[in-house]
Amino acid sequence: MALGTCRTVLITGCSRGIGLGLVQEFLTRSPTPDLVIATCRHPDQAQELQQLKEHHQHLRILQLDILCEDSIKKVVQEVEVLVGEQGLNCLINNAGINRLATLESVTAKDMLTIYETNTVAQLMVSKAFLPLLRKAACQDAVMGIHRAAIINVSSQTASMQLFFQNKKSQEVYPYRISKTALNMITCCLAADLISDGILCISLHPGWIKTDMGGSKAPLQLKEAIPAILNVLANLREKDHGAFLDWKGEVIPW
Amino acid sequence: MALGTCRTVLITGCSRGIGLGLVQEFLTRSPTPDLVIATCRHPDQAQELQQLKEHHQHLRILQLDILCEDSIKKVVQEVEVLVGEQGLNCLINNAGINRLATLESVTAKDMLTIYETNTVAQLMVSKAFLPLLRKAACQDAVMGIHRAAIINVSSQTASMQLFFQNKKSQEVYPYRISKTALNMITCCLAADLISDGILCISLHPGWIKTDMGGSKAPLQLKEAIPAILNVLANLREKDHGAFLDWKGEVIPW
Ligand SMILES: NC(=O)c1ccc[n+]([C@@H]2O[C@H](COP(=O)([O-])OP(=O)(O)OC[C@H]3O[C@@H](n4cnc5c(N)ncnc54)[C@H](OP(=O)(O)O)[C@@H]3O)[C@@H](O)[C@H]2O)c1
Ligand SMILES: NC(=O)c1ccc[n+]([C@@H]2O[C@H](COP(=O)([O-])OP(=O)(O)OC[C@H]3O[C@@H](n4cnc5c(N)ncnc54)[C@H](OP(=O)(O)O)[C@@H]3O)[C@@H](O)[C@H]2O)c1
Repeated sequence: MALGTCRTVLITGCSRGIGLGLVQEFLTRSPTPDLVIATCRHPDQAQELQQLKEHHQHLRILQLDILCEDSIKKVVQEVEVLVGEQGLNCLINNAGINRLATLESVTAKDMLTIYETNTVAQLMVSKAFLPLLRKAACQDAVMGIHRAAIINVSSQTASMQLFFQNKKSQEVYPYRISKTALNMITCCLAADLISDGILCISLHPGWIKTDMGGSKAPLQLKEAIPAILNVLANLREKDHGAFLDWKGEVIPW
Repeated sequence: MALGTCRTVLITGCSRGIGLGLVQEFLTRSPTPDLVIATCRHPDQAQELQQLKEHHQHLRILQLDILCEDSIKKVVQEVEVLVGEQGLNCLINNAGINRLATLESVTAKDMLTIYETNTVAQLMVSKAFLPLLRKAACQDAVMGIHRAAIINVSSQTASMQLFFQNKKSQEVYPYRISKTALNMITCCLAADLISDGILCISLHPGWIKTDMGGSKAPLQLKEAIPAILNVLANLREKDHGAFLDWKGEVIPW
């Protein structure tokens, strides 16, 4: 197995957009993982994802609503059976939501709902997969996604230092606040998991044309996703606890 | 009125600790504001605060539970009557909670509860007082707490850049994540309110012996609080959108 290739990868929110794109790229890239586990809320309705099964025997589609404790518990049990003693190499916390909300319009309910999905759920999913990530981490010494890693899909709009360059994002108060908080989760996990050898980063995937990114986004999935996979494959100890963009550039907090 | 002295200041969470300390210092400092509005959840139970009323006619104590929409609405109406056309110069979002929660023990409920008090409520209280802050901001041209300001009481443990110096704070996952998110609120408010002339900062008050700070804290209230008031009095446009500590030093995000 080449360094930078994981045997097993699990991605959340794969019904569409970046999650679906990551699944496709992992499936077709060479060398490909032994097992690509694509999770989504409603597998029955995820037609594009289901179609990939016809050509890719190493794809597994599992149900996961990241907001639901029981759903998280169930998927961890299923993944444990699939990966066995090798454990899980790479968890990509990709699922997320957004909603327009300015200073005038933002409500406490918006703030809590978006924090729950974009921040709290990423922590709860990460916690639940820790035993499987730790299993995988025991089997190598060099940090990277070939060993064990948690990738939190964040957003450049979460950067407080770049803030004044991103003024338009004031239209999404709860979103950018939730992603800044997610970045702190990356820091906390990085500090707590370094002794386990589990690499943790926040990743800005680029502003991409998806349902969330909208039609004005400058990037297509087919441009950004292979670049993201290059970044992931090259992650090493020096990147532990960092905030990187889709080209591998460090974003300041 | 000396620059750096506000006519009217309102502080949340004044039953004890830093909030109570700030009230005492504002009341006795020279020159003192025309009106010091101390808010707390249960005024009847706030004995030390009530005792201050005997000696300070310019103290008003109002009920405010920052989690309760009706309570926020009511207090804004009461403050509007008190301050009249002069508006409110300085809002200090001080109320906050903490709870031990490590990676192992943290729950989704902890994360949401602490975010609601330490982050969401600060935004909702700030929004509610905006009309009164804008009124005050119209009456001066130089930014500062003598004109109009929102002070979000944050914590140094919220800094992602200083993170690895503060490892012990991994014991308070929900708290430090909520304060990082609060810092992003400061950034968002700073960007949105600069055109109104309302100064916004995040403030680390120092690690102080209070119910929250605990007995191991190196600072006494009587040392930190006068220093905090010096920092507040000297705030100017250059500080807008910054993260400062109790000595006025910039903390990196
Ligand atoms: N597109 C961009 O420009 C951009 C930029 C920066 C960051 N990001 C981040 O990249 C990630 C993916 O974004 P995207 O552009 O692909 O968005 P998208 O097209 O809206 O897709 C979001 C995905 O998240 C899933 N999801 C939402 N809530 C979920 C839950 N409770 N449980 C499980 N899955 C859930 C959705 O599933 P359903 O189909 O079931 O709703 C969907 O598959 C997000 O974290 C986003 O914040 C995107
Ligand atoms: N002490 C430190 O070392 C330290 C360091 C960094 C940052 N801070 C920050 O400084 C601020 C004050 O801390 P402290 O040390 O003074 O803590 P504290 O002694 O525990 O006092 C907290 C205050 O917040 C109030 N409060 C909590 N929830 C409230 C709500 N829903 N509505 C209204 N008031 C509420 C409490 O009122 P009740 O009496 O009604 O509970 C109390 O007055 C906090 O934001 C804290 O995070 C403190």
